[in-house]
Amino acid sequence: MENRSEISQLGEFGLIERLRGNVTLTNPTSLVGIGDDAAVIQATDDECILLSTDMLVEGVHFDLSYVPIHHLGYKSVAVNVSDIAAMNAKAEQITVSIALSNRFSVEAVDALYAGIRAACESYGVDLVGGDTTSSTSGLIISISVMGRAKRDQIAYRSGAKVNDILCVTGDLGGAFMGLQVLEREKQVFLADPNMQPDMEKYEYMVGRQLKPEARMDIVYDLLEAGVKPTSMIDVSDGLASELFHIVKSSGVGVRIYEDKIPIDHTTYETAVEFNLDPVTCALNGGEDYELLFTISKDDQEKIKNHPDIHFIGYVHDRKDQNVLITKQGTVVPLRAQGWDHFKG
Amino acid sequence: MENRSEISQLGEFGLIERLRGNVTLTNPTSLVGIGDDAAVIQATDDECILLSTDMLVEGVHFDLSYVPIHHLGYKSVAVNVSDIAAMNAKAEQITVSIALSNRFSVEAVDALYAGIRAACESYGVDLVGGDTTSSTSGLIISISVMGRAKRDQIAYRSGAKVNDILCVTGDLGGAFMGLQVLEREKQVFLADPNMQPDMEKYEYMVGRQLKPEARMDIVYDLLEAGVKPTSMIDVSDGLASELFHIVKSSGVGVRIYEDKIPIDHTTYETAVEFNLDPVTCALNGGEDYELLFTISKDDQEKIKNHPDIHFIGYVHDRKDQNVLITKQGTVVPLRAQGWDHFKG
Repeated sequence: MENRSEISQLGEFGLIERLRGNVTLTNPTSLVGIGDDAAVIQATDDECILLSTDMLVEGVHFDLSYVPIHHLGYKSVAVNVSDIAAMNAKAEQITVSIALSNRFSVEAVDALYAGIRAACESYGVDLVGGDTTSSTSGLIISISVMGRAKRDQIAYRSGAKVNDILCVTGDLGGAFMGLQVLEREKQVFLADPNMQPDMEKYEYMVGRQLKPEARMDIVYDLLEAGVKPTSMIDVSDGLASELFHIVKSSGVGVRIYEDKIPIDHTTYETAVEFNLDPVTCALNGGEDYELLFTISKDDQEKIKNHPDIHFIGYVHDRKDQNVLITKQGTVVPLRAQGWDHFKG
Repeated sequence: MENRSEISQLGEFGLIERLRGNVTLTNPTSLVGIGDDAAVIQATDDECILLSTDMLVEGVHFDLSYVPIHHLGYKSVAVNVSDIAAMNAKAEQITVSIALSNRFSVEAVDALYAGIRAACESYGVDLVGGDTTSSTSGLIISISVMGRAKRDQIAYRSGAKVNDILCVTGDLGGAFMGLQVLEREKQVFLADPNMQPDMEKYEYMVGRQLKPEARMDIVYDLLEAGVKPTSMIDVSDGLASELFHIVKSSGVGVRIYEDKIPIDHTTYETAVEFNLDPVTCALNGGEDYELLFTISKDDQEKIKNHPDIHFIGYVHDRKDQNVLITKQGTVVPLRAQGWDHFKG
């Protein structure tokens, strides 16, 4: 009888770590492999190609009972472009592979690709290839994205230095609260299909969940301001989880301030309505696709008036001290509770 | 009531054509998009990056009741490398995304990745990224591959010229017959689990099905011989189907000779045993992953002694006359019967 270990015991990150452990790079053009938002491949002496990929599975990553398929197409591209933005680079090409069951009509596929094309247009990305096949159940979307950057402009998770300033863009927790709202309305609808949900007050959060944007604008703004982030990552699994990626890769610790964490007022109010702590939602809710990055103290002045960049804390040298300072001045250890599809 | 058209009516190629129709390229680095074995992206003035992707779905592309998962990992990489070989280029990096249900153990994933790593080593390709997620049913593998070539060395489907010689490598129909053998043994086993199948005489074909190799060796041999194919494609859907891709893209016609089509003697004998026509199997059986290419007449001398390259016919200018000359000298129109997962 063969030994059998369950993947749920390892979890998604454990499995990735396990698979990553056996990998070595042999081509001189493979500069950086697994472990950041994108792989880095040498193109010319001073320019690199970035390569990243994401897979979205129906029933795991999206629920078509409330996600319009056009938005799903847009979001699939946006989250991939976000991985390139997180390297401080510009996305240029994508490939899109889909597997779909006969539940899907040609019109549904058209709507999905209309969303994909809209995102391509919005981000200046070309759809250059893909694969189309049938599946035995549901829809699977696999996108790969190629980006480009000057070699010395690429921002890694590992570059955070002591005394750097921690920055985050936009606001957090909105996409998570949007998901809560959509899930609740689905239950209400299932119980009574005649109920007309009043979604107006949740519009912002639902939009954050259904149609997130990659923050390419920030990449351009930083370039224009002459600021190269010392480290960067996109917020897909939640602020806390991404902070841990940065501190682990950089060998540092972080201190962040509760009152600096950007939360939209509707997100705040809706969290309270759902009996959830708004700060916990901002720390651990995923899918905002904002950028989290560190900058040298010397650069702070250059972007201090940017309306969408928030300074939330700083980097220090005590590796295992990652803390949140509450509004009351209490020091609370940070915990990563990023989403794990195998455990979830 | 919304209009609903079935994808099965369009078929896989129809769907791809439909999706492709709306795509335009905007980045100057996007040299060639959808429509060949790989997209072509400018890297330097004289060097290009090739990008291709493939998705394999359990129950559609493979059956784990007779495919060892280690071989599946190897094959997933090989078929992607084959797409780069088909551009007359060298594969350098891949990303591997998998979605898997809790039916799969950690040991099964380890075996899959052992196969993936073995193929990476065999082809000198680096695994640089990927995604790992859960699925509601079965295993899905999505691989993207990046290759590299001098811009003037890239071979497209569209370059076949009148009077060019048609070449094919290895032998054809073996992978298809291997699949027939495996499917028959599965039925025998299901009927009586105590039956011990005698697979020895089918070993070659089963190997062709389970562990195909990308013909990177041919790419190197052609380079060494100083031969640049005028057009090239890999044989994944069957010789006839690939010939039609070349003639359609190149605006030419082809004439091939039945007695020149390379068929291994065990493939021939097994086809007869299965009451199948061996030539039909070679023409329409897929998954051999050999290379089909055209060369200028002037280059024929340079590779005429290559033991694994066969001259099967030539290119002419009558676009709609694609014919097979039988051993008896009869002229038969070629028909493409490539596999269609949506119709099949």
